[in-house]
Amino acid sequence: MDHFTDRLIAGIRRCGNPVLVGLDPRPGDLPGPLRPQDSGDLPAWAQAYQQFCCGVIDVIAPLVAVIKPQAAFFEQLGPAGMAALARVMDHGRQKGLLVILDGKRNDIGSTATAYAQGYLGTIPPSGWGADALTVSPYLGEDSLEPFVQTAQARGAGVFVLVKTSNPGGKRFQDLQVEGRPLYAHVGQLVESLAVRTLGRNDYGAIGAVVGATYPAQLGELRAVLPHCWFLVPGYGAQGGAAADVAGAFDARGLGAIVNSSRGIIFAHDRPEYRQTYGPRRWQEAVEAATRAMIGELQAATPAGRLSEGSG
Amino acid sequence: MDHFTDRLIAGIRRCGNPVLVGLDPRPGDLPGPLRPQDSGDLPAWAQAYQQFCCGVIDVIAPLVAVIKPQAAFFEQLGPAGMAALARVMDHGRQKGLLVILDGKRNDIGSTATAYAQGYLGTIPPSGWGADALTVSPYLGEDSLEPFVQTAQARGAGVFVLVKTSNPGGKRFQDLQVEGRPLYAHVGQLVESLAVRTLGRNDYGAIGAVVGATYPAQLGELRAVLPHCWFLVPGYGAQGGAAADVAGAFDARGLGAIVNSSRGIIFAHDRPEYRQTYGPRRWQEAVEAATRAMIGELQAATPAGRLSEGSG
Repeated sequence: MDHFTDRLIAGIRRCGNPVLVGLDPRPGDLPGPLRPQDSGDLPAWAQAYQQFCCGVIDVIAPLVAVIKPQAAFFEQLGPAGMAALARVMDHGRQKGLLVILDGKRNDIGSTATAYAQGYLGTIPPSGWGADALTVSPYLGEDSLEPFVQTAQARGAGVFVLVKTSNPGGKRFQDLQVEGRPLYAHVGQLVESLAVRTLGRNDYGAIGAVVGATYPAQLGELRAVLPHCWFLVPGYGAQGGAAADVAGAFDARGLGAIVNSSRGIIFAHDRPEYRQTYGPRRWQEAVEAATRAMIGELQAATPAGRLSEGSG
Repeated sequence: MDHFTDRLIAGIRRCGNPVLVGLDPRPGDLPGPLRPQDSGDLPAWAQAYQQFCCGVIDVIAPLVAVIKPQAAFFEQLGPAGMAALARVMDHGRQKGLLVILDGKRNDIGSTATAYAQGYLGTIPPSGWGADALTVSPYLGEDSLEPFVQTAQARGAGVFVLVKTSNPGGKRFQDLQVEGRPLYAHVGQLVESLAVRTLGRNDYGAIGAVVGATYPAQLGELRAVLPHCWFLVPGYGAQGGAAADVAGAFDARGLGAIVNSSRGIIFAHDRPEYRQTYGPRRWQEAVEAATRAMIGELQAATPAGRLSEGSG
C-alpha cells in the first residue's frame, strides 16, 4: 500500500479540494423519514445510521476524497452499532474514499498495538480497514510508537490530538510549560514522528488534529510543524470559517484537510437549505452544502490552487 | 441505581479485597487449547476470547468484586470482537461483578455525550451496560462534563487518566506547570468532579487512574485527592508490588482498586505456576494467582482491614 499522504494528496488533487466529510449520525438530527419508530430499539437505529451514512457517501463520493466516521455515535448503539460502522467504512472504501476513523484511541504498549493493528490497514489483518485513525497523546511517546510502526508497515495514517476545537480544550492544552503551551510540546513530538515517516511528498504518516476555531494557533503550528498533515475540525457548525483555516495550508494548497460534519450531513435542517430541501430531500441538501464548502475553501484559502494543477 | 462507589464498596467489603481483574485477551498468550487454527479468522478469535474471558469470570466471580475488560483487544477483531465484548460484559454482570470498561475514551461535547450514554448504565438506554469507563483528560473539562452528568444520572463511575503506569507517560504528564507536574493539575480537576458527585461514602463517582509503578506519586495524590477513588494499574506483570500500592488506600482500606491483567489471566504461563498447571489447567492457575494477589494486598496494604470488618 502506498504511503498515506501520497494517497491523500492523489485524492485531494483528483477532487481539487481538501474537504473531509465527518459522518456523525446524531439521533436527534437524522432526517425524520429515516428515524426508527421505537427510540430504544438500538439495532433499528444502527440500521438507520447505516442507511443514512451510506446515503451521504453516495452523494459526496464524486466530490471529495476523504470521510471521517465518528466512532462514538456508532459505539453508543452497542455491538449492532459497531457492525453498522464496519459496513459504512466498507461502503466508503468501495466508493473510492479514504476513511479516517475518528476514535481518539490510545493506551499503553501492547494495548496501543492492538488499537493500531485493529484499525489500520486492509482487512485482514485489520479488523476495520481504516486508512487513518485519530489518537490521543496524554499517554506519551511510547503509546504513539505502535501507531507509527503500524502506519509505516501498512501505508496508513495517524492524526494525534494537538490543539482541539472545543472551548475547554485550553484547560490543559494551553498550560504554559517552559514558555510554550503544552500543545506546542505535543506538536513537537508529532513533528518528530512525521519526519520519521515521510512519504514521497514532504509530509509524514503521523499528522496533527488542530481546530479551525483557533486560527492564530493554526498558522503558528503550520510554521513549526512543517511535516505534519493537519486534520482541521471545527469548520461550520462549530464556528470556523474558510478564512480561519487558510493558515493550515502550505503554499501549494496541501498540508491540511478540513472537516465539516453537522454542517454537511444535516444540511437539510440548516436555515439556508431548510425551505428548499427539508428532511425528504436531505441528500440534495448534503450535495449543496458540500459544493458550498468546496467553493468557500477554494475562494479563501491556498486550496484554490489545487484545482489549477489538476486535470 | 445506587451510587457507583457505594456499590463498589459493598462488593469490596463482601469479598474482603480490592482486586480488579483485567480481561486483556492477547492472542499470543491465550492458552493453547483455546487458540483457533486459522490465525486470520477474526470471528473464530472473537469466539475464543469470549470463551476464555467467560472462563476467567467463572473462576474469579466468587473471589473478587470487579473486572475490567480492555476494549482494545476486542476491537482489534472488528465487529465480531465487539459482539464478544458485549457477551463477556453481560456474563460478568450476571455473575454479580461490577464491570469497568477500559476504553480510555473521550471527545468533545456531544460526542463525549455519546460515549458516556453508550457505555454507562443499564441496557437500554446504554448500548453496553458498563458500571464504569476509563476516560482521557486531554480535551479538558467540557469533555468530561457529559461523563459526570451521565454517571450521576445512572449510578455509574468514571476513571480519568491522571498518572499512567507506562514509562513514556511522563513525557507530558510530568511536565512542570507552575511548580507542579501536569498530572497534578489533571488530578485537581478530577478531585473537583469527585466532590460534585459524592456517594453516601466520602468518594465521588469520578475517580482517577494512577499507576502502581509510581508509588511515591500514588501516596502524594492520595493526600491531595481525598475524594477520588483510584484505579491502580501496573500491578504484577508491569512491576508494581503490594508495598508499592499501599499508599493508594485510605486508613479503612478503601479508596483504591488494584488491577492485574496478564499476571492473573495468563498465570498458566508464569514460572511459578507453569509446571503445576500449564495451558490445559489454565483456570486453576487463574484461581491460584487471584488468591495469591488477594493475600499479598491483605498482608501489605490497608486493604487487610477490609476482611476484619466484613461478615
